[in-house]
Amino acid sequence: MELLRLGAVGDERPYVRATDGTVHDLTPLTADIDGAFLAADGIARTRAALEAGELPAADVDGLRIGAPIARPGAVVCIGMNYAAHAAESGSEPPKQPIVFFKHPNTVVGPDDEVLVPRGSAKTDWEVELAVVIGKQARYVETDEEALACVAGYAVSNDVSERAFQIEVSGGQWSKGKCCETFNPLGPALVPADEVSDVQDLRLKSWVNGEVRQDSNTRDMVFSVAALIRDLSQYMVLSPGDIVNTGTPEGVALSGRFPFLSPGDVMEMEIEGLGHQKQALGKA
Amino acid sequence: MELLRLGAVGDERPYVRATDGTVHDLTPLTADIDGAFLAADGIARTRAALEAGELPAADVDGLRIGAPIARPGAVVCIGMNYAAHAAESGSEPPKQPIVFFKHPNTVVGPDDEVLVPRGSAKTDWEVELAVVIGKQARYVETDEEALACVAGYAVSNDVSERAFQIEVSGGQWSKGKCCETFNPLGPALVPADEVSDVQDLRLKSWVNGEVRQDSNTRDMVFSVAALIRDLSQYMVLSPGDIVNTGTPEGVALSGRFPFLSPGDVMEMEIEGLGHQKQALGKA
Repeated sequence: MELLRLGAVGDERPYVRATDGTVHDLTPLTADIDGAFLAADGIARTRAALEAGELPAADVDGLRIGAPIARPGAVVCIGMNYAAHAAESGSEPPKQPIVFFKHPNTVVGPDDEVLVPRGSAKTDWEVELAVVIGKQARYVETDEEALACVAGYAVSNDVSERAFQIEVSGGQWSKGKCCETFNPLGPALVPADEVSDVQDLRLKSWVNGEVRQDSNTRDMVFSVAALIRDLSQYMVLSPGDIVNTGTPEGVALSGRFPFLSPGDVMEMEIEGLGHQKQALGKA
Repeated sequence: MELLRLGAVGDERPYVRATDGTVHDLTPLTADIDGAFLAADGIARTRAALEAGELPAADVDGLRIGAPIARPGAVVCIGMNYAAHAAESGSEPPKQPIVFFKHPNTVVGPDDEVLVPRGSAKTDWEVELAVVIGKQARYVETDEEALACVAGYAVSNDVSERAFQIEVSGGQWSKGKCCETFNPLGPALVPADEVSDVQDLRLKSWVNGEVRQDSNTRDMVFSVAALIRDLSQYMVLSPGDIVNTGTPEGVALSGRFPFLSPGDVMEMEIEGLGHQKQALGKA
């Protein structure tokens, strides 16, 4: 089962895809998939309604895929969470999670156009495992408690402009992380209890069909559970928040690949969570 | 005229205080003061309704004051925007605005209790002019266009934990800026067109009745208009977003004053925008 939001930009409606591949309308249960729905046990209620046959089958042919969560409260990002990416960026692996934010209005559908910002020469890709929070996380102490706060997972592209992030930022990365369209998310929200081992998922990215990143979540410096525990000592994570858990090696910042230009095509994929494809345009 | 949200936490309702001091119910016009209301010309419609006598007088005695804007989309913060504060923090004035974020769930009422986080030894205050965005700002070119995106202004306390911000953060400040209750905002949203010169407002803070900060927005490195212009090159500012425009000198980070402890009392004030008072408690 996976949760979807389909429809034109700003006009998405909620759906669920059953294990047999059929897609069902979720509006008998909720007007949208958002923090309030997830906090009100939305995943379990979706599963129950689906099994009870209460959700009508839907014809979704040709509908655009939106981000699988509406109105995220915050997009919390973790930096340097794969040792090999820290090395290619010229850094040691961090001793504590490094935290920055993207503006929530950067979140777009997984196959929407991504705009190279005006004045950009260094637009870059970052495939990441996104954690969608379903239950408030505040001073969480155990891994078990941390993972109980996770509603599910999605594919995320933490698009970055490296000159904005590093050269004109005074050292604070958010300036290169917040441009319009800079966070394709989806295609689906996959419930946490349907991911057998979140620390063993292959994640890959491609540019113009050539592999750029090819790694596994087992190589994270801090596991998903450790990240939630740590973040919850410094902030309250609320239902509907997204945590981008860091990117593995293979980005243009390494110097091994050219930065992105209008006309290029990015693809991102995480095992069991789906595939994204974005054409680059101009802001 | 100033816009208010009054009532218990999570149950605030919208009001407007007229120039004569009377408070009027704003619910005939809107269910809440949020980005959608501001984007739909909410300030002008409030003024017109007030002048037409369409808003009933309200008895608000004893009601808690909430933050004057519901569900901010993002809390964008500017670092080191007063030269003397940059100096007391050991830095040069920045050549470009420095940008970081607070989690929007840090926003609380102006007189709500502020919680010293667990494990904190370096909780600090920062009085700031908050800009509330009323109209999308995207690639804005002129100061005039920038200021036209501002709905109004409010007093903000950008509460900070300096060890979290600097010592365990890997250099990314948000980790010390996002603790629960860390952004008292208000008491009011004062419409931009009722502030005669936003670059000439005295701003002050006190701890336990002793003055800590006493400066003026004329000492900003980057003006409000310059900040909106600059930010809009790197992100889209949406209606309902808040921009904390940086703090002047006189914080504990300088070494001149002790950090905050439970039992202390902070006060913040900006000329024409009102006064805040927060007791410190324990998380």
